Amino acid sequence: MGEGYHAHWGSPHAEANAIAEAGRKAKGATAYVTLEPCGHGGKTPPCADALIRAGVKEVVYAHADPNPETAGRGPQRLRAAGVTVRRQGRAPKYVRELLQPYLAHLECRRPWVIAKWAMTLDGRIATRSRDSRWITAEKTRRWTHRFLRARVDAILVGAGTVLTDDPALTNRSGRGRQPLRVVVCGRRPLWPRARVLSDGGPTLLVVPQQFRAPPDVDVAVCGQLWKVDPHRLLGELYDRGLRRVLVEGGGELLGSMFDAGLVDQAAVFLGPRIVGGISAIQAVAGRGRARMAEALELEHVVHHTIGPDQVIEGYVNWASGNR
Amino acid sequence: MGEGYHAHWGSPHAEANAIAEAGRKAKGATAYVTLEPCGHGGKTPPCADALIRAGVKEVVYAHADPNPETAGRGPQRLRAAGVTVRRQGRAPKYVRELLQPYLAHLECRRPWVIAKWAMTLDGRIATRSRDSRWITAEKTRRWTHRFLRARVDAILVGAGTVLTDDPALTNRSGRGRQPLRVVVCGRRPLWPRARVLSDGGPTLLVVPQQFRAPPDVDVAVCGQLWKVDPHRLLGELYDRGLRRVLVEGGGELLGSMFDAGLVDQAAVFLGPRIVGGISAIQAVAGRGRARMAEALELEHVVHHTIGPDQVIEGYVNWASGNR
Repeated sequence: MGEGYHAHWGSPHAEANAIAEAGRKAKGATAYVTLEPCGHGGKTPPCADALIRAGVKEVVYAHADPNPETAGRGPQRLRAAGVTVRRQGRAPKYVRELLQPYLAHLECRRPWVIAKWAMTLDGRIATRSRDSRWITAEKTRRWTHRFLRARVDAILVGAGTVLTDDPALTNRSGRGRQPLRVVVCGRRPLWPRARVLSDGGPTLLVVPQQFRAPPDVDVAVCGQLWKVDPHRLLGELYDRGLRRVLVEGGGELLGSMFDAGLVDQAAVFLGPRIVGGISAIQAVAGRGRARMAEALELEHVVHHTIGPDQVIEGYVNWASGNR
Repeated sequence: MGEGYHAHWGSPHAEANAIAEAGRKAKGATAYVTLEPCGHGGKTPPCADALIRAGVKEVVYAHADPNPETAGRGPQRLRAAGVTVRRQGRAPKYVRELLQPYLAHLECRRPWVIAKWAMTLDGRIATRSRDSRWITAEKTRRWTHRFLRARVDAILVGAGTVLTDDPALTNRSGRGRQPLRVVVCGRRPLWPRARVLSDGGPTLLVVPQQFRAPPDVDVAVCGQLWKVDPHRLLGELYDRGLRRVLVEGGGELLGSMFDAGLVDQAAVFLGPRIVGGISAIQAVAGRGRARMAEALELEHVVHHTIGPDQVIEGYVNWASGNR
């Protein structure tokens, strides 16, 4: 017997892991899989071929793959090689939950969205004078580079955050890749000497309407009057091949993403300090929910402590908050 | 050798605990204590007498007791019984930190103040329509009754909280005592049919100016124009014998307490939900701090998980935030 799962995008699929664990016992065995085995080579070789080579006799799967690049091709190849292939009725709830991130991408044609913010114990991301340095400890900020920035294709921030913080938005962990920096602009023109526009690294400006951009800046128009439409924004990023993005704020951008129901995962960092003030800046602005029972709930929540700070991470429960 | 500490108000003092642990070995020993041993019987018998009975030969203490009820009396009794008593120079920083809560009471003549709030992961204590039911799970709310409400002399809330939530503000844990309910009023008149005024339990109304109160309601005037002065409020509570109070909100009351530098300890409850909205209600209002570097820091922070929720507790660092 062998078991396996797909750890993350670009790594071996569940089938390859299970075959490796089973070794010789795979010969003549039945493979039970959640998603139909793929029949195309993407980041990894097709799983159908691996199952055939391993001598698997039968494959039972729970959910068809809606990805047009592979749908039906895996089962077809398996059958052509004499392997029995069965789909086991309707996929049970836990299988659908497990596959949700993958299915969401394909069905909605948008990247997986992680919302991240650091806040004080009274829930502020900046003081009334928009000062946010620093809420968490240096160790915690290094952690976010290594475990968040190094693992996404793009980092999104609003133009207001660029104006007040002038962040570099780079992955300074020394590992993984450099995410594309995406600045979402509204009415506010972007400060041309901002670090993200002047340090030579790639940056994408997303604007609501065509405007005179500096000549060598990449611009995408995703607007509705004076506001960038979050659905069009994510569609644009998906079309550019970005599959996993990190939204780092400010509150206005996070609010519009939450209001549009487009956040899949959240990572909240809490520094042990209290800033107070009726006009201090909140983490998630926008319209929000009228009733607490409509709040979006996180599930599969994990907490960890990094130095003096706390991190709370979880997946947005798609069934909560009438989303 | 024996060690001991004073766990909480009303329980045996450190000396009694250390003597119990040392047993017979206390005879002829030297006792090292932070605060001078007390010479009066309060909630527990005088420590000086216990030390004498145990046969301690010498007592070294780090900090004199400023409490006029006992100051100097313990050392005097000890010396009269032939025990050598020495004060060890100036109290080191960690001793002063350890004694801070006790010293604060005596020096400032005000109760120890615990601020408590439950908030969403985006730092809100209510939605834009002031709905706050519920942010945390029932299990967590039961925990607050047992470990916070049952252990304080009074619970303070603002009149706004009474208007929107109409809370009972009772300790429903089945343990400990019933705290006095204190409602801090501002311009807003208190709803006369509010539960805290009509359920027969004791409630104290704190108002900025004399007004026509319902005949059988206990009223204290602690005002400055239209606003209750938080220093006068705490002085009044201290004079009524209340030594440990819990401020449960709303944001306006918590803000005025934090602005006045009157919070000693904070307990923040986080429910795994996100409500969003630019006009959702924040945990700590008031004026707040202009710079993040001026934020009040918590120290000796502990985190714990209760069901789906997180609790972060700590002591306000008196040296932080230029308080």
